[in-house]
Amino acid sequence: MDKILEQSLLYDFYGELLTSHQKDIYEDFVLNDLSLGEVAQVHEISRQAVHDIIRRCNRQLAGYEEKLHLVERFLDTKKKAEEILCCAQSMEGLALENSELTRTVEKIEEISRQILENL
Amino acid sequence: MDKILEQSLLYDFYGELLTSHQKDIYEDFVLNDLSLGEVAQVHEISRQAVHDIIRRCNRQLAGYEEKLHLVERFLDTKKKAEEILCCAQSMEGLALENSELTRTVEKIEEISRQILENL
Repeated sequence: MDKILEQSLLYDFYGELLTSHQKDIYEDFVLNDLSLGEVAQVHEISRQAVHDIIRRCNRQLAGYEEKLHLVERFLDTKKKAEEILCCAQSMEGLALENSELTRTVEKIEEISRQILENL
Repeated sequence: MDKILEQSLLYDFYGELLTSHQKDIYEDFVLNDLSLGEVAQVHEISRQAVHDIIRRCNRQLAGYEEKLHLVERFLDTKKKAEEILCCAQSMEGLALENSELTRTVEKIEEISRQILENL
């Protein structure tokens, strides 16, 4: 997986376990894509301090995933919801003659999209 | 939600963030349904100590959920997977004449069951 995407996912799941100071720095660097120097300037700390905080955050977030595996579970569920959506879409053409079938297929599509949005 | 079920769910999600000592005590009391006295005897500590550890564990687990809401997200996804399974089952009778439809409905049922097992 792409490094930034992985960091964002881990932050999405476990970010609330970081301190608010860590979160501010991490968001600016990883999510808002500021450079080390820019983050240092904004928060009035040294580049080295920013570097250390980011490294510590990454270790903490990776440590939570190593223990809890919740990102892994969510990604697996997401893949399955996409498979269901794909199955339902493949039925669209076949089910057209029967309006009850069509409605149910549409409902399955809608719910699988809701699962994907919720993950 | 039933108190024991709630505690088990929180433990299933966040238990690995407790210490191994906390986990041993918590599992015996909540999952293995031993009494305070029995847990105290097994672990050679006082009933009061068992009581305090359980209370602290409950607070910690509830604190993680308050911050991360991952049990809530999982329960919501579970409900949606059950709805998809229900929709697919309702199509079984209608889809019988067409073998491609039947196979796809069965596949949707299978995947939604996999989602439910994974949660």
